[in-house]
Amino acid sequence: MNFSNYNGPFTFVSRFEEGEGTNPEELVGAAQAGCYSMFLSALLSGKELKPESIETTATVHLGKDETGPKITNIDLVSKVKVAGIDESGFQALADEAKQKCPISRLYAGTEINLTATLIN
Amino acid sequence: MNFSNYNGPFTFVSRFEEGEGTNPEELVGAAQAGCYSMFLSALLSGKELKPESIETTATVHLGKDETGPKITNIDLVSKVKVAGIDESGFQALADEAKQKCPISRLYAGTEINLTATLIN
Repeated sequence: MNFSNYNGPFTFVSRFEEGEGTNPEELVGAAQAGCYSMFLSALLSGKELKPESIETTATVHLGKDETGPKITNIDLVSKVKVAGIDESGFQALADEAKQKCPISRLYAGTEINLTATLIN
Repeated sequence: MNFSNYNGPFTFVSRFEEGEGTNPEELVGAAQAGCYSMFLSALLSGKELKPESIETTATVHLGKDETGPKITNIDLVSKVKVAGIDESGFQALADEAKQKCPISRLYAGTEINLTATLIN
């Protein structure tokens, strides 16, 4: 699959100040949250479960090291409403989605912390 | 900097078929192209040069390995219109932007191939 570039309004102001528009960090957070949710949805479906909702938020932390700006870590917080699975079974699938989703695998240059909550 | 989640219309259809909407791979391509362009712009400005335009496209290749889906490589193609710099000086800055932009550093789990063209 090939994709071309994005012509959205991202600027130095939207990136480093409080300006309007998106920026690269916001896009990578959106990609991670979306990919994780889709992957977990697929894993749950594979167990014949039907999630009612999966809501995931990614918080991207942009810091700095000796080379320059660096995304130091990403916090993924996911709330999942699904019946028919217990806490330990759910946490195992949540962790599998974090490990195997292709966006997590792409982001090998940072640390991803997951907090997954099961709502029955 | 913290960012929350994206509520855009991405679905399995927009990801794996030809449906409407965005998807995680498109977002990571957009982030890479945007970050690279901003970083190169900053490096050129640091040399007192004023780029007239920087146009960068990222093509994201989603493949598969034994673990599952994987972003195997990203092709970055950048066209830069700027006066006052020679080809080798330009290529050095283009490569530095690829190495140091925080999105490239985040994407340690893939290979990034850059083709940068200088237009005087």
